[in-house]
Amino acid sequence: MSVIAGVDIGGTKTKIGIMADKFVSTVIDTPKDAQKLIDVIAKTLHDLAGEIDAVGVGVPGAVDSVGRVSYMPNLGFRNFDIATTLSQKVGARVFVINDANAAALAECQSGGFTDAVMLTLGTGVGGGVILGGKVFDGKFGKAAELGHIIIDVDGKVCGCGNRGCLEAYASASALIRRAKEEMTNNNHSALWKLCGGIDNVDGAAVFAAAKQGDVSAKSVLSEYIRYLSIGVVNVCNIFRPQAVIIGGGISNQGEDLLAPLRAECERLNYGYVGAHKPALLAAKLGALSGMYGAIAFAKSKLSEA
Amino acid sequence: MSVIAGVDIGGTKTKIGIMADKFVSTVIDTPKDAQKLIDVIAKTLHDLAGEIDAVGVGVPGAVDSVGRVSYMPNLGFRNFDIATTLSQKVGARVFVINDANAAALAECQSGGFTDAVMLTLGTGVGGGVILGGKVFDGKFGKAAELGHIIIDVDGKVCGCGNRGCLEAYASASALIRRAKEEMTNNNHSALWKLCGGIDNVDGAAVFAAAKQGDVSAKSVLSEYIRYLSIGVVNVCNIFRPQAVIIGGGISNQGEDLLAPLRAECERLNYGYVGAHKPALLAAKLGALSGMYGAIAFAKSKLSEA
Repeated sequence: MSVIAGVDIGGTKTKIGIMADKFVSTVIDTPKDAQKLIDVIAKTLHDLAGEIDAVGVGVPGAVDSVGRVSYMPNLGFRNFDIATTLSQKVGARVFVINDANAAALAECQSGGFTDAVMLTLGTGVGGGVILGGKVFDGKFGKAAELGHIIIDVDGKVCGCGNRGCLEAYASASALIRRAKEEMTNNNHSALWKLCGGIDNVDGAAVFAAAKQGDVSAKSVLSEYIRYLSIGVVNVCNIFRPQAVIIGGGISNQGEDLLAPLRAECERLNYGYVGAHKPALLAAKLGALSGMYGAIAFAKSKLSEA
Repeated sequence: MSVIAGVDIGGTKTKIGIMADKFVSTVIDTPKDAQKLIDVIAKTLHDLAGEIDAVGVGVPGAVDSVGRVSYMPNLGFRNFDIATTLSQKVGARVFVINDANAAALAECQSGGFTDAVMLTLGTGVGGGVILGGKVFDGKFGKAAELGHIIIDVDGKVCGCGNRGCLEAYASASALIRRAKEEMTNNNHSALWKLCGGIDNVDGAAVFAAAKQGDVSAKSVLSEYIRYLSIGVVNVCNIFRPQAVIIGGGISNQGEDLLAPLRAECERLNYGYVGAHKPALLAAKLGALSGMYGAIAFAKSKLSEA
């Protein structure tokens, strides 16, 4: 059996795991220097396993079609060839994958799907698309930027500079921004008491306040779910997947998020009357999905070779 | 060399061609009866070629993953298993493909692309997606309904029942509808003289009037191109293709359509700053693209088997 390692590089923490006879993993701080990052990953891998056949590396940035990281915004690395550098250091093949794609692959395999789309609701809206069991990333890489599908021509300005991107409405940041706007308009909102101040609002607080019947939170949430449903329905019309998997902290709300989301998608016929209706699920692997996905990616690449 | 036939079933005419040592083709009227349709296709194939190894059939409707036509709206056929019926009649393997996908495959191959998206602007907006040289149709078929990507949450009602679909803005029908609205508002529009009446407006007339400097036509056209650019940019963010190919009668306008469309897509960074910029082209195979694509599809299926 091959010994395959998975590395999930995050802005502050990097998760490293090895799948051999048994599964071992650890978490390290992410150095802000590219060479130091490679060194500490190589050392950790060596300490955990000794001999390794392949390493999958998930990165929070854009990966080109040959696995070079052209840009990792949160770490400031540019044109960083992790594959070559790490491969020389550990003496094993290294396969690099965008972290959202890695998470999608892991969630998809864990759900028993071969064709699924994952939307990760965080600072932005990350897209991960699995087709025929493989990550779909386009001929040149960097495809499946599902958060930047424009859903409102004259809509809100998005971080990317365009207007009306899904991300400007359906990210966790968008939910929080709208909640703050509503709090400002409504001194009596339960959100004030729940959060102890406008700076502490998070997605969970909006769900909690809505459950208490707070008008502001309910209104923000129903608007949020409406926009998210447009994202889901678009993805259905594009890919007709077996499943749409919602990830990110908000997905911890489970059925409080999924039940109204399904109802709204039903109302929109999942894109088209008579269209295949996908399973609409929350991610279940949590914070380790990127690492599991990196392992799955390396495994699939090894078997291709 | 295999003898491969292509059939492109249209609402009124059906095109039949055979690729052997040389290429022969013919056009027949489409019978409104399913059995008669099969009979006349089989007879025509026999007259044209005698022995045939495989037939590709393009249909104006939804094809499921095993090639059954579940619905052909313009012909009223439902759950019509063309593959089995025609195969028994002609003694060759039959492969069925949606006509928009067939056209996309032919245009993609003819342009030398392996990864391209075709948007056909007609009564609706048809989508055809080619990935790695193959038609992408989703695990269950019927994917790539790109005309029903919602681009304006609270927008115009589309034929599908949802609001704000690309099709409601970027189809040829949408262009004509908007031109008629503008004519009604402006008795002096050059469109009145050009078309000799509101019922004769077509896409070409709007382009012609805009060239003459007609304010109404220019306004309708610039709005149209703006919406179409959103469709193109969304497709770029989703698939990052080598090319986006515009088909349908409007694509005959060539650079009069493409130049302003490219400018608008540039303004939107083709979806994302630094993203791969696809070629933006007009379809060039014209009315025969569906038939050529049906042949290419049968050929690819034969080589898979």
